Amino acid sequence: MSRYVSKRLSRIEAYTPGEQPQDKKYIKLNTNESPYPASPKVVEAVSADAVARLRLYCDPECKKLTQALAGLYGVGEKNIFLSNGSDDILNFAFMAYGESGVAYADITYGFYPVFAELHGITPTVIPLKEDFSLDVEGFKNQNKLVVIANPNAPTGMEISLSDIESIVLSNPNSVVVIDEAYVDFGGTSAIPLTKKYDNLLVCQTYSKSRSMAGARLGYAVGNEALIADLNKIKYSTNPYNVNTLTQLAGVAAVEDNDYYLGNAQKIIATRVYVIGALEQLGFEVLPSKANFIFARSPKISGLELYLKLKERGVLIRHFEKARIKDFNRITIGSQQEMEIFISKVTEILGE
Amino acid sequence: MSRYVSKRLSRIEAYTPGEQPQDKKYIKLNTNESPYPASPKVVEAVSADAVARLRLYCDPECKKLTQALAGLYGVGEKNIFLSNGSDDILNFAFMAYGESGVAYADITYGFYPVFAELHGITPTVIPLKEDFSLDVEGFKNQNKLVVIANPNAPTGMEISLSDIESIVLSNPNSVVVIDEAYVDFGGTSAIPLTKKYDNLLVCQTYSKSRSMAGARLGYAVGNEALIADLNKIKYSTNPYNVNTLTQLAGVAAVEDNDYYLGNAQKIIATRVYVIGALEQLGFEVLPSKANFIFARSPKISGLELYLKLKERGVLIRHFEKARIKDFNRITIGSQQEMEIFISKVTEILGE
Repeated sequence: MSRYVSKRLSRIEAYTPGEQPQDKKYIKLNTNESPYPASPKVVEAVSADAVARLRLYCDPECKKLTQALAGLYGVGEKNIFLSNGSDDILNFAFMAYGESGVAYADITYGFYPVFAELHGITPTVIPLKEDFSLDVEGFKNQNKLVVIANPNAPTGMEISLSDIESIVLSNPNSVVVIDEAYVDFGGTSAIPLTKKYDNLLVCQTYSKSRSMAGARLGYAVGNEALIADLNKIKYSTNPYNVNTLTQLAGVAAVEDNDYYLGNAQKIIATRVYVIGALEQLGFEVLPSKANFIFARSPKISGLELYLKLKERGVLIRHFEKARIKDFNRITIGSQQEMEIFISKVTEILGE
Repeated sequence: MSRYVSKRLSRIEAYTPGEQPQDKKYIKLNTNESPYPASPKVVEAVSADAVARLRLYCDPECKKLTQALAGLYGVGEKNIFLSNGSDDILNFAFMAYGESGVAYADITYGFYPVFAELHGITPTVIPLKEDFSLDVEGFKNQNKLVVIANPNAPTGMEISLSDIESIVLSNPNSVVVIDEAYVDFGGTSAIPLTKKYDNLLVCQTYSKSRSMAGARLGYAVGNEALIADLNKIKYSTNPYNVNTLTQLAGVAAVEDNDYYLGNAQKIIATRVYVIGALEQLGFEVLPSKANFIFARSPKISGLELYLKLKERGVLIRHFEKARIKDFNRITIGSQQEMEIFISKVTEILGE
C-alpha cells in the first residue's frame, strides 16, 4: 500500500478468491464453476461480427438482456438490474442500504464482511445454529440491511420461502437481500416475493448454473425503486460495466434455458452420488441444495484432506475459520471428475 | 429512488452517458468511439473455444494481459493495474486518494464531479483559463488528489510533460492522476514519469484508439504501491471485473499495436481535414490532440447546430454548461463520415 491511501482503505482486508494455481492441470472443485460448457447458442451469439463491433460502447441499459430476463421471470423490465457479476450488485447493495448497519451469518459468503469494512458499515454477525442452519429468528427485527445467501455458502443449506417472508416482514424499514447464486440446483427462488414486498432484493448470477463465470454477469430482481437505486450507483461509477459480448451471450443463454436446466439436473444427480459415496466413507455431509457440498470426516482434518487432494491433482476449498475448519467445500463437477475425486479420497483415507 | 437508500446516495446526480438513440441509424460522432473495427487478430482471439470456456472464472490477476502491457510500455508487471474501463479506475482512485479532497478543472470529463459526490469528497474546481487551456499554476500545491485529463475533454487541448512534472512535484503528499484516454491521437504520455514519481498515476483505455469501447478495458500505470492500493479496492469489490474474452482481446490488440497506431494516424489526418473545413465555414476550433474537436460558430448556437444535425442523422455532443454552451464536441469519424458531416453543416449554415 502507498502512503497516500485513505485511512479506511489502509485498514481493510480484501477478499481472497479461490486459488487458480498454474503449476499443473487440476480437477478444479474449488470455485463452484459448472463442469459443462456454455451453450452452443451462446458460442454462436459471440460472432466475429460482434467482436469487430466492439469499437462501439455497449448498451448501458442492457435493453435486450433486460427484456429476456424479465420474460423468463415474469417481471417488468424495471424490476431487473444488470451488472458485472453478482459481487458487483452485492457491493452496490451495501453502499445503498448499509447506512444503519448490516446483518449476516457468521458462516456465509466471505465477501460480505469485506463490503461492510470497505464502506464503513457496522456488521451484526448472527451465528448459524449448532446444525449450521440459519438462525431465522435472529434475523428478525434487525431494522438494518439483511443479507442472506440462500442456499447458503459454504454450507449449501437452504431456508424456506416462508422463513424469508417472515424476515422481510419483520424488517419493514430496511432492505433484505437474498443472494441466490446457487438457487438453480434444487433451491426455491424468492423472486415471486419481490412483487409483494418493496424491501426485498434477490440477486442471481450467470456464473454457476449458466456456465458463464468468465463472462461476468449478475442480475437483481426487485421493486422498481430498489432497481432505480442500484442504477444510480451504476451510473455514478461505471455505466458500461456489462460488456457487449456478455450481453449477447446472456440473451442467448436465456433462449437456451432448457440446456442449463438439464445441466443443473445432471449436477444434482452427481451430487446424490457424491454424498452417498462420502457418507459410505464415514463423512458427515451437510444437506446441500447447491452445486457444492460441505463435508467433514472424523478420520482426517479438513486441511490435511485438502492438501493431500491437491498433491493428487484435485483442488477443493478449505477455510481456516475455527468453526468450519474440519470441513471442506467440494464443487460438484462432472460424474467422471467426481468418481476420480471419490477414488482419491478413498486412497487417502486408506493410507 | 426507494425510501431505504442512504442519505448521500439520495442526493447525488449520476453521470449521463452520450445518447444512444435507437429510432434510426445515425452517423455517431457523439461518444468518441473509433470508426475503425477491432483488429482481425482480436476477432481471431475471441474464438468459439474461448467462449465455451467461459464456464471458468477469468484470471483476476489478468496475468497475460499485464505482461503484454508491461512489455509495451517498458514497465514492470507490478506497475500495471487492469480494470473494467478507465471509469472504473478513476472511481477507485477517488476512493483511495480523495480523503483530503480533490482538484479538477471546471471544464473537463463530467464523471469527476460524480465520483467526488458519490464518495463525499470535497472538490476544488480550478477554472480553465480564458483560452480554455489548463491553469497549471492553479493545480500546484493543492495537497489533495489532483485529476487532470490530458488531452482534456471536451476541449481536446493538451498540457506539456514539464507542466505535469511541475504539478506532481508541487503536490508531494498527494496523488496526481493523469487521465490519458485520448493520448494516442497526437498527445504525449506521462507514463515515463511514473518511474520517477511515486505519486503519479496514469490511466489509459482500450475504448478510443484501440477500438474496444464495448469490451470494457482500462489500465493504470504507476508506482508499485499505488497499483497495490488499486488492487486492494478491486479485490474488495469485484476481483473478476475484466472478463475472459476481454483479456484475450486485450492481449491480441497489444500484439497488433501497429494496426491501431495506423488507425490513429488516419484519425489525425481526418482531424486536420475537419478543422480546416470548419474554419473555412467560420468556426472557431480549439487546438485538438484528441479524436474529437470542440468548436463553435458565430452564426449558430451550439444547441441549434446539434439539433439540426440530429434531424439530418448526424449525432454530435452538446453540453448545456454555461461556459461551453456555444460549443459542440465532434468525434472524428472516418473520412467519409466527416465529409458528410461537413456537407450537412454547410447546408444548415446556408439555410
